[in-house]
Amino acid sequence: MSEDRQAPVRVALLGCGTVGSEVVRMLLADADELAARVGAPVEIAGIAVRRPDKHPELPQELLTADAGELVESDVDVVVELIGGIDPVRGWLLTALRRGTSVVTGNKALLAECGAELAEAASASGADLYYEAAVAGAIPLVRPLRESLAGDRITRVMGIVNGTTNFILSAMDSTGASYAETLDEATRLGYAEADPSADVDGYDAASKAAILASLAFHTRVTAGDVYREGIAGINSSDIAAARRLDRTVKLLAICERVAAEDGTESVSARVHPVMIPKSHQLAGVGGAFNAVYVEAEAAGELMFYGQGAGGAPTASAVLGDLVAASRNRVAGGRGPRESAHADLPVRPMGQTPTRYHISLDVADEPGVLAQIAQVFSVHGVSIAAVRQRDKHSTASLVVVTHLAADAALEATVSEISKLDVVREVVSVMRVEGEDS
Amino acid sequence: MSEDRQAPVRVALLGCGTVGSEVVRMLLADADELAARVGAPVEIAGIAVRRPDKHPELPQELLTADAGELVESDVDVVVELIGGIDPVRGWLLTALRRGTSVVTGNKALLAECGAELAEAASASGADLYYEAAVAGAIPLVRPLRESLAGDRITRVMGIVNGTTNFILSAMDSTGASYAETLDEATRLGYAEADPSADVDGYDAASKAAILASLAFHTRVTAGDVYREGIAGINSSDIAAARRLDRTVKLLAICERVAAEDGTESVSARVHPVMIPKSHQLAGVGGAFNAVYVEAEAAGELMFYGQGAGGAPTASAVLGDLVAASRNRVAGGRGPRESAHADLPVRPMGQTPTRYHISLDVADEPGVLAQIAQVFSVHGVSIAAVRQRDKHSTASLVVVTHLAADAALEATVSEISKLDVVREVVSVMRVEGEDS
Repeated sequence: MSEDRQAPVRVALLGCGTVGSEVVRMLLADADELAARVGAPVEIAGIAVRRPDKHPELPQELLTADAGELVESDVDVVVELIGGIDPVRGWLLTALRRGTSVVTGNKALLAECGAELAEAASASGADLYYEAAVAGAIPLVRPLRESLAGDRITRVMGIVNGTTNFILSAMDSTGASYAETLDEATRLGYAEADPSADVDGYDAASKAAILASLAFHTRVTAGDVYREGIAGINSSDIAAARRLDRTVKLLAICERVAAEDGTESVSARVHPVMIPKSHQLAGVGGAFNAVYVEAEAAGELMFYGQGAGGAPTASAVLGDLVAASRNRVAGGRGPRESAHADLPVRPMGQTPTRYHISLDVADEPGVLAQIAQVFSVHGVSIAAVRQRDKHSTASLVVVTHLAADAALEATVSEISKLDVVREVVSVMRVEGEDS
Repeated sequence: MSEDRQAPVRVALLGCGTVGSEVVRMLLADADELAARVGAPVEIAGIAVRRPDKHPELPQELLTADAGELVESDVDVVVELIGGIDPVRGWLLTALRRGTSVVTGNKALLAECGAELAEAASASGADLYYEAAVAGAIPLVRPLRESLAGDRITRVMGIVNGTTNFILSAMDSTGASYAETLDEATRLGYAEADPSADVDGYDAASKAAILASLAFHTRVTAGDVYREGIAGINSSDIAAARRLDRTVKLLAICERVAAEDGTESVSARVHPVMIPKSHQLAGVGGAFNAVYVEAEAAGELMFYGQGAGGAPTASAVLGDLVAASRNRVAGGRGPRESAHADLPVRPMGQTPTRYHISLDVADEPGVLAQIAQVFSVHGVSIAAVRQRDKHSTASLVVVTHLAADAALEATVSEISKLDVVREVVSVMRVEGEDS
């Protein structure tokens, strides 16, 4: 037994880019420290990269171009940092079915095939850890899965994509257009050459799916997540928010929603949101991420830290690797996924939201009455109205109470057709305000 | 095997006050949900309270006055919410030696006898969980012990005591004296009838010992923590901070300190600190707690939430109880304590700190030169000086660079004896400023 404990934990690394090379560096530099924490040495058995000849900086004898072969060799843990669904999915399923534990930061794969991976892990008794898949260095998966395991989470809401946060923060501070700011972000390396995964909200939607699955013990896939990116945000939206001491953020919002008959469902969505400048999320700038969690007993919790980058993400990977390795050494096993609640996913149209609508309207009597009538017809209750004269037109700002998103959308559509409405200047969902 | 899995996990509850009764409520109300998460029903085997006749609200057949007997009965997990060292220490050691897992929120016991408890748990293979002991509902123990297990934590700093935070916040907003504000806090139920554990920093020091032990893989006891409470803070300290757009908070600060020769040590301290109003910790009010963690790879992380109260603390207890129960059902075991680094604890005098000193001095030439000379003699470097005329005396504010705390203390002592110094108005350590 004590001899067993000294046998090294053998790790296969798939992919060695920014995060992977930092993982290798830390594994080598802190080998003694990690061995003490794990109870056995943690040894790199191999590193699979597409082009081994392009990695002169890595120990050459560890390199292979054949990830499939490496996964099927004598290893205890597979650390996957390649990303994307195929061919990674097959390799990780192979590993898990063989009883090899998996540590991954692959949000797209988890959001798409999380159930399949979890079942394979559960069947063989292997561990599946993925702290790095959501919000980089911020411990979020483990708190949701373990610390809050005895509580009922009602809401998870946060900034989980650094690229869009950088762009929106910059638009707010410079007043520049979306296109100009995206160019600048690309030049500075904050946005990829093909920015779609970030700016169209795909990355955030994958993370929302993972967070909702954990929080509500329900399988939520990326396809279940309502998704709206930031490409439609223009300077006038930002300016409208600014005038009202608010700012625009791209948020991932996962909620437990109770219907009137008491049945519960889950809503998961990613879209731009207007929040008060005084809200704690408003101050989260650049590449930082921040996530609020609300639970029935715990109340409101907030987690803040670096959401991306080589070293921060490697920290999350190493934490998981230590956990998986400890379990190998001690013979235990991490907590299983749990999808027992199996709640239905509520479509966006039926999800309660609040709208902030800025209109340019004719400066004549009875305008507000006409507009209010449209809200009333759709069953949408108005929380606040502000009017401001502006030469021959007047500016009207309406904030609604919570209503089904489809009713709000229909209201805006009908209002835009009224003769007295010159222009719908900005429509934005709001969060973080007293209702 | 599958029959085994359905056997209930039997829980003994020691103590049933505010937190305990919330734990019972949640265990009964969410029984099905918890069973699904654990993989087996979680059953209350008994509740030990001092006076069973005083608890008509609890299931009578579960009550006992004999905690020792309950611990030695057929139970899988002991949840301890009594607090204090004796007789609890004996009961928990008995449980752990019998292989019964322990969930506790007892910070005083952990800060005093943590090593002994961890060794007993390790020897028998039982789990020892204590998320509720630090910062109530905020997941902090698990992130430090597991999520950051592959990283090197350099600093943990935060507000971990709600009572003192309430008092200092109130003094800042009302300008009232410490004594008046403490009376008010007691009346409102924010302070105990005997407030010493909170206001003298004992509670925060216990938490600092637990956090430092986890963060630095080193046994740190409450006795190792430098401790200064808030009873010495007067309105003029608060006013001095306010004039400079700063505020006073009681912080627990745990640091990894490297000496010039590269050897490392650990510093753990609790004392009032002046921080800029713009610092994120400055905005943390009332009973909320917030803790910063800095790690080499992860960078800066922040955790925020309710640090006390029945339901928030019960959430942390339940999370631990689910983990311990899952391990019972699955046959695994939580991560062990690790004290392998075994770093020396650095005395406060040798810990680098920065001081903020407000003086009333004679309004005559050469005063600053005399004062600066004293700093120089003690090897303390001055970061900034501000002077202000005030009738016949002048007001002088000095902020230092980092220096050994003993050198700073000696400097202040010598300055206070200078003829040109009429009064030392306020001396406060500072954090969160650029140096």
